[in-house]
This record gives sequence, structure tokens and C-alpha cells, in this order.
Amino acid sequence: MAIHGTIAWYVFVCMENKGFHYLKSYSHASKDSFDLFLEAEFDRVKEISKVPAEALRRFHQTAREGKRLRGGLVTLGYELGGHSFNDAIISASHSIELLHAGLLVHDDIMDRDDLRRGLPSIHVQAAEIAESLHLRIDPEHYGISVAMSIGNAAFYLSWRTLMESDFSDTAKVAAAKIYAQYTPNVAYGQILDLTTEGLMTLKEQDILNVYLHKTADYTGVLPLLIGAALAEISDEKVLKALEEYGRAFGWAFQIQDDVLGMFGKEEETGKPVISDLREGKNTLFMLYLSKHGTRPQIEFMKNTLGNPDVTQQDAEKMRQMLQECGAYQYVVDLGWEYVSKAQVQIPVITSNQEHAWILSDLVEYMMERIK
Amino acid sequence: MAIHGTIAWYVFVCMENKGFHYLKSYSHASKDSFDLFLEAEFDRVKEISKVPAEALRRFHQTAREGKRLRGGLVTLGYELGGHSFNDAIISASHSIELLHAGLLVHDDIMDRDDLRRGLPSIHVQAAEIAESLHLRIDPEHYGISVAMSIGNAAFYLSWRTLMESDFSDTAKVAAAKIYAQYTPNVAYGQILDLTTEGLMTLKEQDILNVYLHKTADYTGVLPLLIGAALAEISDEKVLKALEEYGRAFGWAFQIQDDVLGMFGKEEETGKPVISDLREGKNTLFMLYLSKHGTRPQIEFMKNTLGNPDVTQQDAEKMRQMLQECGAYQYVVDLGWEYVSKAQVQIPVITSNQEHAWILSDLVEYMMERIK
Repeated sequence: MAIHGTIAWYVFVCMENKGFHYLKSYSHASKDSFDLFLEAEFDRVKEISKVPAEALRRFHQTAREGKRLRGGLVTLGYELGGHSFNDAIISASHSIELLHAGLLVHDDIMDRDDLRRGLPSIHVQAAEIAESLHLRIDPEHYGISVAMSIGNAAFYLSWRTLMESDFSDTAKVAAAKIYAQYTPNVAYGQILDLTTEGLMTLKEQDILNVYLHKTADYTGVLPLLIGAALAEISDEKVLKALEEYGRAFGWAFQIQDDVLGMFGKEEETGKPVISDLREGKNTLFMLYLSKHGTRPQIEFMKNTLGNPDVTQQDAEKMRQMLQECGAYQYVVDLGWEYVSKAQVQIPVITSNQEHAWILSDLVEYMMERIK
Repeated sequence: MAIHGTIAWYVFVCMENKGFHYLKSYSHASKDSFDLFLEAEFDRVKEISKVPAEALRRFHQTAREGKRLRGGLVTLGYELGGHSFNDAIISASHSIELLHAGLLVHDDIMDRDDLRRGLPSIHVQAAEIAESLHLRIDPEHYGISVAMSIGNAAFYLSWRTLMESDFSDTAKVAAAKIYAQYTPNVAYGQILDLTTEGLMTLKEQDILNVYLHKTADYTGVLPLLIGAALAEISDEKVLKALEEYGRAFGWAFQIQDDVLGMFGKEEETGKPVISDLREGKNTLFMLYLSKHGTRPQIEFMKNTLGNPDVTQQDAEKMRQMLQECGAYQYVVDLGWEYVSKAQVQIPVITSNQEHAWILSDLVEYMMERIK
């Protein structure tokens, strides 16, 4: 992280980056209607009962702190069709933000992460509520069950925002078909990610396959194509290029997620840095180390990966090893290769110079982001 | 269960019941296309990886053994609009069957039920796979995570079947809006159901409120209204009556579910009979007992409800107490009151004599079913 280590450098990158500015504008423009939607739902749920309403309120608290990357890609996909940014597309974009927020609630259960965006994860908050209410049920089990349910509610609300957005029925059905095409793969990718078999039998392609389904497709391809469907873009060449761009974008995103999961700062990322180690995740880092590390390095990795008692010291030692053996540089270079692969598609996607710039800078920002 | 206790009696009821026959015809007609859909998805997922494909195959194995009650209500709601049963509505009806099957996978995690339709629950099957593969991850945690993911996949596939069904975009958007209106409440109802506060503070209305959101609305109202939306029924009076019918239908269904959960036979219901006691569920039975039981009965209930070590003997003693104190009769009578409330709506819903008969018999069957 030496060259990327200063905040001043990061601020400089962001100032110059049109993708970063696009996201910032989207975040600003979407904030109020996102809050209004979830506040109205809170008021409605309160009439059912205060307990699920409180769970929803806490979900909202975390969901609103996201990077809003996927929502921004929905509006960008829409603008590529020659339409300008409006209330209808902002409402529809909440759909993908809610899907993502629901997935994170479930992810935190599966990865046993106690922290999300600097706040306790939903299952941890719900367990605390069970304790304070002295419920008969085991607090930890209650926490998981409530978080599962609130995640599900987020999925259903995600569909509601898409279906109730102000577009033609034809455009909405087209968007919904894309939604229903990509989302099951996220679940399959998640199962693959959990099925952490021995690294020795894995190839780089296997890990990239997990990344593709677990993250890349729903982070990059899904929101762009939903925006494009709502804009009724029908040119097959453009859609194909957008899909390729989105996929490479998603891979770059996940690679930088691994980088931040290992080398990031908890106060920036808002999530624990030892989680990937503790959960024994087969990342590209670990694969590289298992192929190119020294014998003692590989031995250390075997003892650390998936160890529930992994310490901050172990993580620090692992970071040093990953830099020494070249894994860090290899993975970062691979991320930048995906940036280039995405950028190659831009001339096919658009002839609008401003849009081209945003697409180009946005995918670079995926590798430059520090959270 | 004295008067309802013989198989001969049950067979007689079913022979005479037009609702039962409707469901049987639907089950027969929908079986092949349901299987084909999930087999095609299996073939697609196999290309991603064999592990999630295997999880999906096991999900399919359990999902296909359902009563197909909700799918049948979709086609019935459609037929009420004067259309006849066809391939398009069967495909759309899979949507609600998949939603339901996904919810059950999640329910079994939350209620810690190891058995579903006579097969090990998905989280139990997945935990067994983790053990046999010697994965690094804790098998129980792996089982829960895989089952969460497969449940989510079922929700997304549910959406896919609805969106890809052969109806106009307008009809599909109308149906999808109803879907997205009712489904979040299932999640909120589930949270309420888990928040098992002391019985002494609860009223009957509170428990019926949980039943409404957790089960009744998505079991009765949602499928009927989806069918009606796809048939483009627009008469507000009919829709309102259908909603009332569906809600009372759902309450009767949930009440009989409680009856079977306490008094049913495991070999018929395919699920454990002590689960409601072990999970400390605040059913109408327990509420009645807490208000009308003797002091030793109430004491026994307090020690049994939510006790992880509850035995079959405890359950037998509880059954006797519920009959002695009048709780059994009270709850069954309440169920039949909902049957009447549903039947009152029928003349508003339809003037077709055959449809009226099916609607009338079907809701009676909810209280007569033994599984």
C-alpha cells in the first residue's frame, strides 16, 4: 500500500475523477427519496408491530450509509440511453440499493461479521435487543433469524420500488427479467464462496468464477443493464459491450474488496480486517501465496486461514508475507487489467464524450477507492 | 382428535370435497412443468459449479412434495375471471409455490426444525455435505448459510417465473405489485413470531395479528389476488370480497397448522410435533391455557414452553391438558368460524355455481386436512 497510502493522494485522485463525482452527485440526489421510502415503510410497519418496525429502522440506518455505487450504475445505464437523470430513475435505482443492502445483512450472518459500515451488524443488534427484552429464545439465534427476515424484507421492497417506479409496464418487465436472471447466481456464488475446499486443488479461474457470480455480475452488469432496460436501449451491440464492461468492472470491484479486506483500514472500510482470514476465504491472495510462497509461509497460511482465533498480529504477518512473495502486486495488477478490459468497451457503448469519461474514470476509481 | 381420528373418515371427507379435488387436479397438472423448470435451472447451475447445483437439486426434492395449495389458489383466482386453466397460469403459479418453498427453507432454520416433508431440512442436508467434504468451515454454520442462500435463490426464481409467464406486461406488473405489497409483511410477521414475549401480556388479537402477517395473507390473499390480477379482474367489490375470503382462509389454514403441530401425526405432516413447544411459540392453544388452565397446568406450561429438552412425554401431557381445559375445542371452533367468514364472501366473488362450490369446500378442507 506504500504508493497508495496517503489521504492526500486519495483526495487528489477523487478531485480529478469524473466517476467519483458522478457517484457523489447520485448519492446526493438519491438520499432523500431513499430515506422517504424507508421512513414511509417504517410508519406502515409500526401499525403491524413495533418490533419489526424497529428492525427495519436499524436496517435503514446501515443501508443509507452505503457507497450507492450500484444505484449510481442504474442511473448511468439509463443516461446512456440519452435520457436525463430524473425522479423515476432514482426511485428505480433504490431497487438495486435495497437488494444490495439485504444481501449484506445476510452476508454478515454467513461471514460472522459483527461490524458493517462502522455499526454493529443487524444480527448483532437484534441479539442485543433479545437480551434486553429477556426473550425466551437464545439471543444469538434470535439475532440471526431477525436479520434473515429483514434481509428478505429488503429483497421484497427492492421489487416493490422497481415495480412501482414511473416507467412503462414493458420497460419494467424487461428490467425485472434481467433482475430475475442475474440474482439467483448471487445465491449460487455465495454457496460456492462458502464451500472453501483446499486451495491446492483450485485454479485462478475457479476463484474468478466465484467472484463473478457472488459479486461482479450483480455489482456491475445487473445495475447497468437495468438502467439500460428502463431507457429501452435495444441495440444488441451496445448491450453486449455494456455487459462486458459491467463484468470487468465487477471483477475490479471484488479484487479491490479483497485488497481492502486485507490491507484496508477498519475505520475507512467500516468492516473487520481479519474476517476473510478467519472465515478461511480462498482469495486470489491466498492462491498466489500457496503457489509461490516459501514452505514456512505456506505453513503459516494453513494455520491461519479459517482459524477462529486469528489475531491482528497474524493479519499483520500475513500482510507482510503477501507483499514479500509478490501476491499483493500480482493481485493489484490483475485488478488494473480488468480496468483496461472494461475501458476497451467504452467506444462501443457510447459516443457521448462526457459519458465515456465517466465510464472510464468510474472503473479506475474501483481500484483506487479506500472504502 | 377423537371425532376426526380415523383415516376412513378422512378419505370420505376428501371424496366429497370439491376443493380437495381441485387441488388434486392442480397438483397433477402442475407437477411436470414445475419439475421441468427446476431441472432446467439445475442444468444451468451445473455449469457454474456442482455444489450449488446439488443444493438446488435437494431443494427441488423437498419443494415438489408440497400440498401445492398456494399454486392452486393462483389458478383458481385466475379461473374466477372466466378464463380456463392453461399453461400460462400454471407457469405463473409456480411463482407462489417457489416463494413458499423458499420461505420454508428459511423457517426451518429459524424454528430449528430438522425435518420437512419427511426429509431432512435443507440446512441439515447441507451440514451433512460439509462433513463429508471435510470443509474448513463449521458444518452447522455452513448448513445454515447454504440454506439461507438456496431460500434466496427460490425467491429470485419465484420472480423469474412470474415475469417470464405468458401474460401481458400490464397484467404481470399488476400481479408483481400485489406480490411486492404482501411479501414484506411475511418477513415482519416472522420477526413478530420469533419475539415470543410473555403470554400474560398478550391478547388473542396479538396472536391473530402474527398469524395474519406470517401466514394468512401470503397463503390465502396473495395467490388469489395474483391469479385475479393475471385474469385482469377489475371489479373492486369482487377483489375486496376475494381479499376477505383469502384472509379468513389463511387464518383457518394457520389454526389447523397449530392443531396439526400439536395433535398431528409426524408420519402424515412430515414435520416434528414438538417443534412449536420447543421453540416456545405463543399459539392460541397456549394463550387459552394461560387464561383458563389450573395453576399446576400453567406451571407445567411455563416449564415446557421454550424448553430445548422438551420430550415426547411432555407433548403428550400437554395434549391431554389442552383437551381437558377446553383449549382444543375453543381453537378448532375458532377455525370453523373463519371458514364461515370466508364462505359468506362467496356470493360476492362469483355467480358460477361450480366455482362457488370449490371455494366453499376448499376452505372447509383447510380445517379437515391431516397434513
